[in-house]
Amino acid sequence: MQADVFKLSMDHPGDVSALANLIDSGEIRADQIVAFIGKTEGNGGVNDFTRGYFTDRLMTMLSRHLNEPADALARRLPCILSGGTEGVLSPHYLVFCRKQTDAPGTGALAIGKAFSPVLEHQHVGTRDHALSVAEAVKAAIADAGIESIEDVHFVQVKAPCLTSERIAGLREKGLPLPATSPGQSMALARAAGAFGVALALGDITSEALSASLFLQDFSRFCDRASVSSGVEVEANEVIVLGNSDTWSGNLRISHRAMGDAIDLAAVQTVLADLGLSAKSQLSAAERDRIRGVLVKAEPDRSGRIHGQRHTMLNDTDIDPQRHIRGAVGGVVASVLGDTRIFVSGGAEHQGPDGGGLIAVIAENTAGHTPPTQDTGV
Amino acid sequence: MQADVFKLSMDHPGDVSALANLIDSGEIRADQIVAFIGKTEGNGGVNDFTRGYFTDRLMTMLSRHLNEPADALARRLPCILSGGTEGVLSPHYLVFCRKQTDAPGTGALAIGKAFSPVLEHQHVGTRDHALSVAEAVKAAIADAGIESIEDVHFVQVKAPCLTSERIAGLREKGLPLPATSPGQSMALARAAGAFGVALALGDITSEALSASLFLQDFSRFCDRASVSSGVEVEANEVIVLGNSDTWSGNLRISHRAMGDAIDLAAVQTVLADLGLSAKSQLSAAERDRIRGVLVKAEPDRSGRIHGQRHTMLNDTDIDPQRHIRGAVGGVVASVLGDTRIFVSGGAEHQGPDGGGLIAVIAENTAGHTPPTQDTGV
Amino acid sequence: MQADVFKLSMDHPGDVSALANLIDSGEIRADQIVAFIGKTEGNGGVNDFTRGYFTDRLMTMLSRHLNEPADALARRLPCILSGGTEGVLSPHYLVFCRKQTDAPGTGALAIGKAFSPVLEHQHVGTRDHALSVAEAVKAAIADAGIESIEDVHFVQVKAPCLTSERIAGLREKGLPLPATSPGQSMALARAAGAFGVALALGDITSEALSASLFLQDFSRFCDRASVSSGVEVEANEVIVLGNSDTWSGNLRISHRAMGDAIDLAAVQTVLADLGLSAKSQLSAAERDRIRGVLVKAEPDRSGRIHGQRHTMLNDTDIDPQRHIRGAVGGVVASVLGDTRIFVSGGAEHQGPDGGGLIAVIAENTAGHTPPTQDTGV
Amino acid sequence: MQADVFKLSMDHPGDVSALANLIDSGEIRADQIVAFIGKTEGNGGVNDFTRGYFTDRLMTMLSRHLNEPADALARRLPCILSGGTEGVLSPHYLVFCRKQTDAPGTGALAIGKAFSPVLEHQHVGTRDHALSVAEAVKAAIADAGIESIEDVHFVQVKAPCLTSERIAGLREKGLPLPATSPGQSMALARAAGAFGVALALGDITSEALSASLFLQDFSRFCDRASVSSGVEVEANEVIVLGNSDTWSGNLRISHRAMGDAIDLAAVQTVLADLGLSAKSQLSAAERDRIRGVLVKAEPDRSGRIHGQRHTMLNDTDIDPQRHIRGAVGGVVASVLGDTRIFVSGGAEHQGPDGGGLIAVIAENTAGHTPPTQDTGV
Repeated sequence: MQADVFKLSMDHPGDVSALANLIDSGEIRADQIVAFIGKTEGNGGVNDFTRGYFTDRLMTMLSRHLNEPADALARRLPCILSGGTEGVLSPHYLVFCRKQTDAPGTGALAIGKAFSPVLEHQHVGTRDHALSVAEAVKAAIADAGIESIEDVHFVQVKAPCLTSERIAGLREKGLPLPATSPGQSMALARAAGAFGVALALGDITSEALSASLFLQDFSRFCDRASVSSGVEVEANEVIVLGNSDTWSGNLRISHRAMGDAIDLAAVQTVLADLGLSAKSQLSAAERDRIRGVLVKAEPDRSGRIHGQRHTMLNDTDIDPQRHIRGAVGGVVASVLGDTRIFVSGGAEHQGPDGGGLIAVIAENTAGHTPPTQDTGV
Repeated sequence: MQADVFKLSMDHPGDVSALANLIDSGEIRADQIVAFIGKTEGNGGVNDFTRGYFTDRLMTMLSRHLNEPADALARRLPCILSGGTEGVLSPHYLVFCRKQTDAPGTGALAIGKAFSPVLEHQHVGTRDHALSVAEAVKAAIADAGIESIEDVHFVQVKAPCLTSERIAGLREKGLPLPATSPGQSMALARAAGAFGVALALGDITSEALSASLFLQDFSRFCDRASVSSGVEVEANEVIVLGNSDTWSGNLRISHRAMGDAIDLAAVQTVLADLGLSAKSQLSAAERDRIRGVLVKAEPDRSGRIHGQRHTMLNDTDIDPQRHIRGAVGGVVASVLGDTRIFVSGGAEHQGPDGGGLIAVIAENTAGHTPPTQDTGV
Repeated sequence: MQADVFKLSMDHPGDVSALANLIDSGEIRADQIVAFIGKTEGNGGVNDFTRGYFTDRLMTMLSRHLNEPADALARRLPCILSGGTEGVLSPHYLVFCRKQTDAPGTGALAIGKAFSPVLEHQHVGTRDHALSVAEAVKAAIADAGIESIEDVHFVQVKAPCLTSERIAGLREKGLPLPATSPGQSMALARAAGAFGVALALGDITSEALSASLFLQDFSRFCDRASVSSGVEVEANEVIVLGNSDTWSGNLRISHRAMGDAIDLAAVQTVLADLGLSAKSQLSAAERDRIRGVLVKAEPDRSGRIHGQRHTMLNDTDIDPQRHIRGAVGGVVASVLGDTRIFVSGGAEHQGPDGGGLIAVIAENTAGHTPPTQDTGV
Repeated sequence: MQADVFKLSMDHPGDVSALANLIDSGEIRADQIVAFIGKTEGNGGVNDFTRGYFTDRLMTMLSRHLNEPADALARRLPCILSGGTEGVLSPHYLVFCRKQTDAPGTGALAIGKAFSPVLEHQHVGTRDHALSVAEAVKAAIADAGIESIEDVHFVQVKAPCLTSERIAGLREKGLPLPATSPGQSMALARAAGAFGVALALGDITSEALSASLFLQDFSRFCDRASVSSGVEVEANEVIVLGNSDTWSGNLRISHRAMGDAIDLAAVQTVLADLGLSAKSQLSAAERDRIRGVLVKAEPDRSGRIHGQRHTMLNDTDIDPQRHIRGAVGGVVASVLGDTRIFVSGGAEHQGPDGGGLIAVIAENTAGHTPPTQDTGV
């Protein structure tokens, strides 16, 4: 197998012309597309409809090429979007493709995907949610043909959340309320997703997995888990990215935990993993080798960064996730020289508390091998 | 003369305890304080009252030490605050002090200040406004005893703006309306301020200075001008910072233009100017040498950064200045390792279009001399 | 001819199920639909994509019923959406239908529509823009078969605006810049639209029409004009509503100017025009007779309402239009008892300064005739 | 005793000139002031510093008149401010005065106040918090000399909340965390306050009072309780308003529960209670009789109003409390004709779920007696 990744810009959340053009020109074969990860320019919250709009347009466009109904496509092609391009961030999407090839394996980028069954609303953000995610992650690893879980570098999950209507629905039916507000449900769903990834990757045991850890014990984390939550999905969608000896091509992925929101060293190190010099902003030539940058970040719950107070958690006017995406987007873009970076907030249990993680997919330079890393909850 | 600069944190916009404690302990003499520059945690707009609140508390506290009414102090001690600590930025203030000394001159940091007369509302953002600023800048340079304008590295101006009430007042009186909205008046006032600094520093001639350039010809800029505008001042307040052979001590200032919002090289270069290694985040020891970091930034008017679309200028929910402060704060803090950075939006004509400037005050290492730089409109 | 109007709820901006169900059940014939006016739950600004999303879904759904491409439908069926359901407002849309009938004319609701040619970007918000709107309004009146312009009660216009990209495009081409920011272009486009309606309705002469009046002379207004502006249209779209002796059925429309944002009397009077008692909240039976409520409103530019200061125009965190929609939505909903009210901000020259207008479509009680009203710029 | 109430405007949150002028002119005697209730133009959230700023300026000004330190005044004169003047609302404050008089009792407005001891952070929003409030309410009723709790019409409480720093502090000390976010702590503090008032007024028994009801059982409420929460207080501050046979003068207070956010009838009824015709907007003469209007409101947790969806609870950009204040402010101002209305969000357990309450203080017309009302949790 061989993977390919395309980083495409969008002019607005309904704009899928960049992909349409590449399909029309034959550069991308629609039937080789397996997944999407992208950033749209909404607010990233419950009432962010840019994600649904883009997905709708994307699936409708693909439907014409694949002779398959748009809603059926949406149930087999994960399209995981994070809203919010605060600051310098640029709306864009990564198109993940894979094809059969006779070329020998090179330890190259491997891609897998899976969907869980539909998650009932009362299970959002619970241990059952985590178990559902774990099963889907295992299925996606198998789909990728990755044999060792150490070779997994990044697992993207999109998990359902509650809206105030869904909460009212649970109340009416007398069902348990996993959360009393949409925002709380999104946070719990992200926590459940992170623990689900950790379970699938062996970073936590089934016995140790308890919902009492969710949003409580932030010393537990998985720095290969990236979880978004949104009203637009009813099932957990999973994309697994890793390197595998059985995949060919020149793409590689590496990842690093970010210790805090200004962890410049993590950015520089993950680039060095991929043979890129990173002491200053990448040159244009190096920048062109970057196929995708995936970041999770979180306002430090202590209210401090390097001992100094920040104001993200007490702001009634700008959501904390909007704050952190803007800041971390600046940090990463200043090194990359490219503002098309997937920076997603809500990094609970996804990397160290107050930090998060960064994964980069790049074309490999001759002979350079990214390290296998220790990770763990 | 010898200058000293203290970087102090605040717990909320009414908290002046850090300075009060240093005065009580004798570490700062109240009568040696000449100016303040700081960041408070408001929204940075017309309805940001955190600036006024902090100034009120500060002057009231100083009033007790100096036996001088608070409002009289406010008219002779510039207290230039920029609201908005988006992202990782931390509320803080710089206290600028100066004292007589017999020590020989070392080319050290020099500080001057001045106030213009009260600016009438109809002149906000006009050529008259620029002329008023230029006179005050010249007075502040003289106050600093800086003999060559090349030695000026940073000029901070706080300029009055219009509110909707003031606009209505001008309408009632039949006076010319320099702006029809508060936001527009703030932008024009910043432009007028930047051109005023440029005139004083010889970066533009009096003949060339025309209000028709304001917010129109962004190829004209002064990368030593930093201008804020706010409802809380009625006159232009000016602080001049430079290096002077007649000042002693070990502090130095340097500045660099930022070409765009992610100009990592500018940050690294200004630190190198001061003998600080900057290939990765500063070490704790180096960080302790930093006394103040002053940054102006601006969302690129082209709507693009390095060719990619940004969304800052079209956002109805988050003000563009809030966006850019968050992003650039991340960029600079990731190198500094300290989030107490003065990042002020509204950099029209203050540095290159879409970029801005950065100035750093640091303790000098032995033998290191910051360069004199070419600047210009 | 006979008109019908349906007020339908939406669960999110991609939800067109209410109309789909009525078409499926035969209650609405797709080929009798002539126009839509609705409120979606975005922010109402340049970066509000809920309007485009809803339109996209709507036209795609209708396309299946009418065997006509969605984009062709979008060019002949005006779909005028205003973003922003602040406060109690509920996302909804009015579907305007008309059919041939042999029934005698009853002075009932008449509906017409028209599209202008595509408006070039450099003409947005100019006198040419107003002339383009006026031509379209005349075409729509003709389309409605309304013979006397006094019988026109409400003209809805959706006008193109500029984005920062379009502004940059004009700059690149060296074309005139009618506005330097997206927000400013939206305001100018609304002004141009209002004057265009005024011209078509004889409220201003062609000689008197000058762009120098736009956003300057607020004593000039048309209280039958309702203009929205948005990035999602390239041409002016116009819907005309009036009463006509040649139309049959029991629907009537009336309108009133609102003198200010809390003009309860205007709300009560327009309901009384239609035979509805309005001294307190409408009874459920009366409420069921209401088919559509259309309101334009504006924060008072003087900064005061009934002599007291308001804060809408100086707020950096909440857009003034979001403020006013929330407040006026409360005013009108408290009398109607229904929160599905089209309240659109940006009422420049649409009703008295600081106020706006209200139009109501209701089932007529026997023998009640709404008054013809004096209006004028 | 005789009470007097002054409704004063402010030009900005640091403006106490209206009161200063009345004291200077002798119209108000500083030593007769007992409490303040006001609205400032902040965001009403944790990071709203307009409340602290105004209080600071107010107490500093009074300090000069009363020869008592400002911080001592702040501990004996309740100054309960609610931030947020969304929509048409106007920043203003009510000054409550009382004086000895020989005049016979007339069943007039009675005023009492009290402070609880400082509340420890771990008790915020708990049953202990409610008990602390209840004691303070009883003390304030006694201070007012109101003999029957049926005569109490309005109890205003300002309760402490947690910030992210305080939460981190509790975590560090290993103390119980009553809430994990500032917003959650504010809601719990308001709930505890409402139950505390209910307990003091006999609307709930001590046995029935349980923290498990807080934010859970919204069928329990007290429609005479108005509770704000803010970082600027460390103790519960209480103001009690009622009518008493032993108080003289012509002021009366009445209150009504609001069944929902658009309960026009409640507004009309409470005005009728006070002899004011309210079928349309009050005349100028009637309006002048109004001394204070106090409203609590809440976005309906069901997500619906009169069966139609609202979007307040799912909005990431505008806080739900900002939404509801804007809407309800419009509803009430349209009847009053005056925008100086205290509308405070966060009405959990303060009036019916999804609604709230309204209290009005007005000059009495001859012979009119406001009703005593049934109330209850």
